[in-house]
Amino acid sequence: MLAGLEQLIATKSPYKLASRAFRERTIIRIGDVLLGGDDVVIMAGPCTVENREQLLQTARGVRHAGAHVLRGGAYKPRSSPYSFQGLGQEGLALLSAARAETGLPIITEVMEPGTIALVAEHADVLQIGARNCQNYPLLREVGRTDRPVMVKRGPGCTVEEWIMAAEHVMSHGNMQVMLCERGIKTFETATRHTLDLSAIPLVKQLTHLPVIVDPSHGTGRRDLIKSMCLAAIAAGADGVLIEVHPNPENALCDGAQSLDLDEFADCVAGMRLVAEAVGRRVPRRELVPA
Amino acid sequence: MLAGLEQLIATKSPYKLASRAFRERTIIRIGDVLLGGDDVVIMAGPCTVENREQLLQTARGVRHAGAHVLRGGAYKPRSSPYSFQGLGQEGLALLSAARAETGLPIITEVMEPGTIALVAEHADVLQIGARNCQNYPLLREVGRTDRPVMVKRGPGCTVEEWIMAAEHVMSHGNMQVMLCERGIKTFETATRHTLDLSAIPLVKQLTHLPVIVDPSHGTGRRDLIKSMCLAAIAAGADGVLIEVHPNPENALCDGAQSLDLDEFADCVAGMRLVAEAVGRRVPRRELVPA
Amino acid sequence: MLAGLEQLIATKSPYKLASRAFRERTIIRIGDVLLGGDDVVIMAGPCTVENREQLLQTARGVRHAGAHVLRGGAYKPRSSPYSFQGLGQEGLALLSAARAETGLPIITEVMEPGTIALVAEHADVLQIGARNCQNYPLLREVGRTDRPVMVKRGPGCTVEEWIMAAEHVMSHGNMQVMLCERGIKTFETATRHTLDLSAIPLVKQLTHLPVIVDPSHGTGRRDLIKSMCLAAIAAGADGVLIEVHPNPENALCDGAQSLDLDEFADCVAGMRLVAEAVGRRVPRRELVPA
Amino acid sequence: MLAGLEQLIATKSPYKLASRAFRERTIIRIGDVLLGGDDVVIMAGPCTVENREQLLQTARGVRHAGAHVLRGGAYKPRSSPYSFQGLGQEGLALLSAARAETGLPIITEVMEPGTIALVAEHADVLQIGARNCQNYPLLREVGRTDRPVMVKRGPGCTVEEWIMAAEHVMSHGNMQVMLCERGIKTFETATRHTLDLSAIPLVKQLTHLPVIVDPSHGTGRRDLIKSMCLAAIAAGADGVLIEVHPNPENALCDGAQSLDLDEFADCVAGMRLVAEAVGRRVPRRELVPA
Repeated sequence: MLAGLEQLIATKSPYKLASRAFRERTIIRIGDVLLGGDDVVIMAGPCTVENREQLLQTARGVRHAGAHVLRGGAYKPRSSPYSFQGLGQEGLALLSAARAETGLPIITEVMEPGTIALVAEHADVLQIGARNCQNYPLLREVGRTDRPVMVKRGPGCTVEEWIMAAEHVMSHGNMQVMLCERGIKTFETATRHTLDLSAIPLVKQLTHLPVIVDPSHGTGRRDLIKSMCLAAIAAGADGVLIEVHPNPENALCDGAQSLDLDEFADCVAGMRLVAEAVGRRVPRRELVPA
Repeated sequence: MLAGLEQLIATKSPYKLASRAFRERTIIRIGDVLLGGDDVVIMAGPCTVENREQLLQTARGVRHAGAHVLRGGAYKPRSSPYSFQGLGQEGLALLSAARAETGLPIITEVMEPGTIALVAEHADVLQIGARNCQNYPLLREVGRTDRPVMVKRGPGCTVEEWIMAAEHVMSHGNMQVMLCERGIKTFETATRHTLDLSAIPLVKQLTHLPVIVDPSHGTGRRDLIKSMCLAAIAAGADGVLIEVHPNPENALCDGAQSLDLDEFADCVAGMRLVAEAVGRRVPRRELVPA
Repeated sequence: MLAGLEQLIATKSPYKLASRAFRERTIIRIGDVLLGGDDVVIMAGPCTVENREQLLQTARGVRHAGAHVLRGGAYKPRSSPYSFQGLGQEGLALLSAARAETGLPIITEVMEPGTIALVAEHADVLQIGARNCQNYPLLREVGRTDRPVMVKRGPGCTVEEWIMAAEHVMSHGNMQVMLCERGIKTFETATRHTLDLSAIPLVKQLTHLPVIVDPSHGTGRRDLIKSMCLAAIAAGADGVLIEVHPNPENALCDGAQSLDLDEFADCVAGMRLVAEAVGRRVPRRELVPA
Repeated sequence: MLAGLEQLIATKSPYKLASRAFRERTIIRIGDVLLGGDDVVIMAGPCTVENREQLLQTARGVRHAGAHVLRGGAYKPRSSPYSFQGLGQEGLALLSAARAETGLPIITEVMEPGTIALVAEHADVLQIGARNCQNYPLLREVGRTDRPVMVKRGPGCTVEEWIMAAEHVMSHGNMQVMLCERGIKTFETATRHTLDLSAIPLVKQLTHLPVIVDPSHGTGRRDLIKSMCLAAIAAGADGVLIEVHPNPENALCDGAQSLDLDEFADCVAGMRLVAEAVGRRVPRRELVPA
């Protein structure tokens, strides 16, 4: 058992390993950036890996515009069993190819214990999707890997339940956990979900874990994403996760909430300025031709 | 592919196999009762299987009071990894023993694909817990079994998302699915969740599936359970799922929302009268000494 | 100051005059029925008073089918200033005419302090609409009248805030207050609001006030109203408030949630049976030709 | 009728006068600042006017730290009729005295039609509180004054319902309307409400009205206010409304969500930097001894 945990378990706090009483700050290396320190980390890419050309075009584009991590779904949890469920293993291979070409580390979702090993061969960060925020067997199994894990907040989860999801991962030994706010269910219908930015300072007070914000799922509206990225960074987020597609109108999934490459570049430029205003920075990658 | 499905997939309705356009009514046999017809089915038992005596005492008590199915958790999804997680395989064995003694069929939760086969050895109905309502790999795997499946509504799920969970199960071949309303997350704090009884007639219009109501989780308050059971049956529910504990004050889990055996008997008596008022009946088991 | 109030104010309970610690039960006479005792009171009528013929036809119809109180809006709070705002004073006169002809007492909404006296000339019960649940100056002024007051729950109000609205009325001297559950705002979009039937037993435990349920606004769907009426009575409601229109398709307002006269008669028949099943009754008016 | 309104009424858009189809941008003068243009306007002061010393000390302090407008409640809508309801007319007189001494214009709440004239004698901006967001008679009457009006979003109101509240004011002739986001009711309990910052860009796309954010009521937590102020400005808010008290621990009302003067000064300093990062500025008042 980890030093200090035993005493913490005796306390009333529901958070033990995730608590700031256990540790001051967690910094996670992803490729050549450090998440959770002074840098603001930008993760971008398509909702779904559709094909080689779409993925590589997006990867090159977001890298050129300043992204540090490439996101893309190979396994997609879809409300309907008749919708496209992702390319699966083929999608993972394409993500690996995109990393080889651009140098961008990969974050992608893992949906079930049985595919963790396979996903971990290709992914630098394992993403637990919002629908699986309280899927404890899955949290247990990613807790037994050595990969950083991003736990997305369930749309019906309180901040406490969400942090407890991180605690589940950590209690199995994996301390490299980051939390991702992506909107909660409310009565408001003008946006897909209600992005809860107050969760950023709240989580940073309660825990030592880095906090990411996903304004694409959080609002479901392309025209709100830049504003919410700037707000997230002003509120103290350690990173953002943005859906970008070279041609949002033709996306197989979630086009209505994807930026195109020009919009993404404009968004990154805005984030640089706000990051500096709050004493942080968006690290620049040297823009070698990719 | 099932007859009629192909045409349904071409329609705009999100529900295909679950839709009333596909089938008029689904009736599911559980032990010697039929769920989804004129009978109202009562499922009762402890939140968690704690030990042999607690389980058998409850099983005998609820059988005597009129229950048709015994519920009890062997695998418990808990917000905290440090809480009691259930007796697991030992709990399953105790549930089998309780069925052997009382004749009551068993409903119990299955949390991950890897334990479905084991749980299905002991359970007459597989329960998908509210937190797993959108755990599609788990829904897929129970969809490949021949056991009836109860899909609990996720506390953050719309009626449509919940029915789509049933559709996931059915799309893998298992048509014996029942839905269980157990409350949604709202701003109200006087109750644990807000029990959405309007979901009963809504689901019965949209689908051919039986609907169960769980007022224990839906309200989180012992003093509201009887009223909500009567209301559920008046609204057209096909059954109820009630937490009963011989000694709620000492329950390991959810005592605040458990009825004791006398309260349960009183609740059943009330349900008999309301069921008759709406043209249905709570079938009586012959009260042989158990 | 009322006897017992001083001590109650010293207690921590937020409810004083509304509390069951102050009084066991409040029974309110409306015309010739008693609300809050064993009887279940049915209030029915159009959302809006449109014209003499529509109102009288509805009044005769609902009386014939068993209603005890006629509802109808003369002053209508509308989200848009460009929508029909009700007939105002002319509508009140028509309501009085309908009472004269049918003998049914009248419940109608009052929206501002300045028109209370006028409305009270025509109304037997003053309704505080959901949007005014926390309009304290309005609550204060109806608290200074001698008319029974129905306080509808605000769609964003907790049970506690709603009971406190009643407390505001009562603190100004008017103890004839009834509460009306009419649905809260949630993330569910299949229904207009989510009808919170658990509020019925909850309010009856906390207060001595009668509880009415309005399934028309609570669900916004004509096809759910009967089920919700039966559920409300099974859960212990003292009455229901139902929108009825002789020709819902042509209603100026809220046609989608109005029953026609045949559906209303069928609903009343169902309520009689459920009321008896829970030891209450829907009083019959002698069916003299009206 | 205003030019252009007639055609707009014929359109399907629910917003007419508030719509960007009617006007590009509304700029409102408050004292010597302009709201709705490039400047970010800071409104600060106590929840409740308690006494002369408390008010003047706060007014001097917030002026010194950079506030442009003094807020303070004389009439307080309180959930309980037994809580302090504000100093009323005496509070208004103290607000006038504070303006005379500091030069800061005043924003204060008006709760009922009957006191509008009195409040307007003292206030530069009339505030419609969140509980009155759908109190249409009150909106009508402030719509007949010549004072700027701030409409706070009801905690149960969608963005559309909130904009329609502004439309009610404007339809009676008063075009000087600003909207204030102050949090909505959700299932999250770690914060008092959930501050919906996505409403800022949304309202700015749909309307020409200035948008203010109130993080004090929006979060209910002093330790989240600075982060939410910075986020609001990054997201495009035209101003903020902040509760400040010289001694929050002893505040009569809402101390848990009030900044002290040092915290407020630190918050203003942060806002200056973020405003500049998004191409705006917090105007500086010359710091003459007040």
